[in-house]
Amino acid sequence: MSTPSLLILPGDGIGPEVMDEVTKVIDWYGAKRDLPFDVSTDLVGGCAYDKHGTPLHDDTMAKAQEVDAVLLGAVGGPKYDDLDFSVKPERGLLRLRKEMDLFANLRPAQCFDALADFSSLKREVVAGLDIMIVRELTSGIYFGEPRGIFEENGERVGINTQRYTTSEIDRVARAAFELARRRSGKVCSMEKANVMESGILWREVVTKVHAESYADVELSHMYADAGAMQLCRNPKQFDVIVTDNLFGDILSDAAAMLTGSLGMLPSASLGAPMANGRPKALYEPVHGSAPDIAGQGKANPIACILSFAMALRYSFDQGDEATRLESAVEAVLAGGARTPDLMGPEGGTPLTTAQMGDAIIKAL
Amino acid sequence: MSTPSLLILPGDGIGPEVMDEVTKVIDWYGAKRDLPFDVSTDLVGGCAYDKHGTPLHDDTMAKAQEVDAVLLGAVGGPKYDDLDFSVKPERGLLRLRKEMDLFANLRPAQCFDALADFSSLKREVVAGLDIMIVRELTSGIYFGEPRGIFEENGERVGINTQRYTTSEIDRVARAAFELARRRSGKVCSMEKANVMESGILWREVVTKVHAESYADVELSHMYADAGAMQLCRNPKQFDVIVTDNLFGDILSDAAAMLTGSLGMLPSASLGAPMANGRPKALYEPVHGSAPDIAGQGKANPIACILSFAMALRYSFDQGDEATRLESAVEAVLAGGARTPDLMGPEGGTPLTTAQMGDAIIKAL
Ligand SMILES: CC(C)[C@H](C(=O)O)[C@@H](O)C(=O)O
Ligand SMILES: CC(C)[C@H](C(=O)O)[C@@H](O)C(=O)O
Repeated sequence: MSTPSLLILPGDGIGPEVMDEVTKVIDWYGAKRDLPFDVSTDLVGGCAYDKHGTPLHDDTMAKAQEVDAVLLGAVGGPKYDDLDFSVKPERGLLRLRKEMDLFANLRPAQCFDALADFSSLKREVVAGLDIMIVRELTSGIYFGEPRGIFEENGERVGINTQRYTTSEIDRVARAAFELARRRSGKVCSMEKANVMESGILWREVVTKVHAESYADVELSHMYADAGAMQLCRNPKQFDVIVTDNLFGDILSDAAAMLTGSLGMLPSASLGAPMANGRPKALYEPVHGSAPDIAGQGKANPIACILSFAMALRYSFDQGDEATRLESAVEAVLAGGARTPDLMGPEGGTPLTTAQMGDAIIKAL
Repeated sequence: MSTPSLLILPGDGIGPEVMDEVTKVIDWYGAKRDLPFDVSTDLVGGCAYDKHGTPLHDDTMAKAQEVDAVLLGAVGGPKYDDLDFSVKPERGLLRLRKEMDLFANLRPAQCFDALADFSSLKREVVAGLDIMIVRELTSGIYFGEPRGIFEENGERVGINTQRYTTSEIDRVARAAFELARRRSGKVCSMEKANVMESGILWREVVTKVHAESYADVELSHMYADAGAMQLCRNPKQFDVIVTDNLFGDILSDAAAMLTGSLGMLPSASLGAPMANGRPKALYEPVHGSAPDIAGQGKANPIACILSFAMALRYSFDQGDEATRLESAVEAVLAGGARTPDLMGPEGGTPLTTAQMGDAIIKAL
């Protein structure tokens, strides 16, 4: 196979500085593990708007469609708050997701042992937590039509449409069941079938896919509000959770925060296989662009580095190398290395963004 | 004024048994505080379906429109899981909310000191927590049209519509600001204005109402996913939260669970003032019908009793009597009385549902 290609989109805020550390890791894999990548870099979000007047230039979109995987930092910042909806930084990200058809968003919510005390939850509730939220990412209320703000009977009305087809639910359900097979064999599907017809269809299709193709996996259903409760009460009851775009947005953020490891959490957004058999894919940290600390060497690069580990696993079939990288991160943390966000009462060795990147390279 | 009227709808599961204890409290107010109520009782939910083939009979609906306040227990149960969407127990509740136009759902998330250790969160994160979620309750994706499951290009598609008009947002925002004035003077409004146009309109209208009529209140805005995170991380940063029907469903359940006091939390759903100046109103506990423990004397009646306290405050202008009832509940808990759900490692006096009701009467 030819050298795999990566498109790096550092984006805004702390995006560029955490991505610098990922670049070191990529270079290390090329030099030391004979795993070279053909890397190109481009703009997304506010910085793309500043240069091109759009948060994602058509040329960048075209490049994203061609490469083997996209790595994204973060988008957005207060500077762009008053932009029109159509050119906000987030639209760049949403366009990538939609046009690459990245329907399965994998969001691990994992509690790192060395960091369990950062959680607002009791240690025993979160220690060892390792769940995977599979969020549908290309449909639902994020993209449904009609949408907009209209005049009606002399007042304004804001409209969005939740819309799910059988095939959209089918494919993300399969992604969740496949993952569950490689994990603890348990899927919980969440919707509001007691209130929304789209939730009824969701439950029906998930149930059908399960019965037809994944009867070996244990399937349960939960209303999304009860799901939010149970995530707070006893998150360890879950392994894989599959849910729609909007519920997934909220529930995965809640789950991420529960772990206390927000600066540590990666994500993968996967689509259909390309001609070379690799899925269309975009990898990004769960955290945002954190404009308040941007450019100060305070950002934690680990979430972004672990996103590259997910790329190794899901795009390049290098599960062992992914594990190597994840173990290096754990070793560095176990050794007491801490970016400011990880600095707790029990202390540790304070590191800058770049120093943390270097420490991980060293551990590799 | 004539004797105020109450319609009691015990509903399903533990609804009837917790409502029995509320009835004792109501009787006590009539006998001892010269606050008599004209009480009638009717069916809602699964039990109404069993009798009438509908989860809310038209006669019951008409009665609910006439009384000064409705008290509801809980609806639903596994027996009704396979019923058609249109006659599920929940439809009875949703019809009440919609036809009474109960647009402001007040959900206090309060952590009772005696119970702080029940929370999955660390004591210091939740002790003393007292926030009020104001959830829009009669619009949004719960009621928007078009909705349903349709055939399209040879597959099925599930559709729901999020729909908010200026006036719908305006009135619930006002309710939140009014409450904030009587509390700590702080409102946080939550939506997904970065993704949904209905969220953009929401933010605009809340901002306008604030500038025009409530500039003395502190207003902030947060995306609902960040809101879920912040509720988990540091809930005490909030006082009043105002949000839409669906976000409110999920966020208020998460907040309720954080407190560790789920069996303790009441809610009020308020509409426009009636001819007598009282708002249309329905009061119900936040917990569900808990079919697994129904009929065994294990249910905690406190949430339902505190819902009646909210009725005293919001419908009958008896704030002092509401406080009396709330204090009685606190005294009973402080004295160690516990229904099974409140029984922790440090023990306490185990009480049945009826014994807990009696203990509260005694404390009154
Ligand atoms: C930035 C925003 C558009 C995005 C979303 O709502 O999907 C973010 O919250 C996320 O979860 O990736
Ligand atoms: C029972 C159900 C229809 C209801 C809702 O979704 O509103 C419940 O979850 C609630 O929050 O009161």
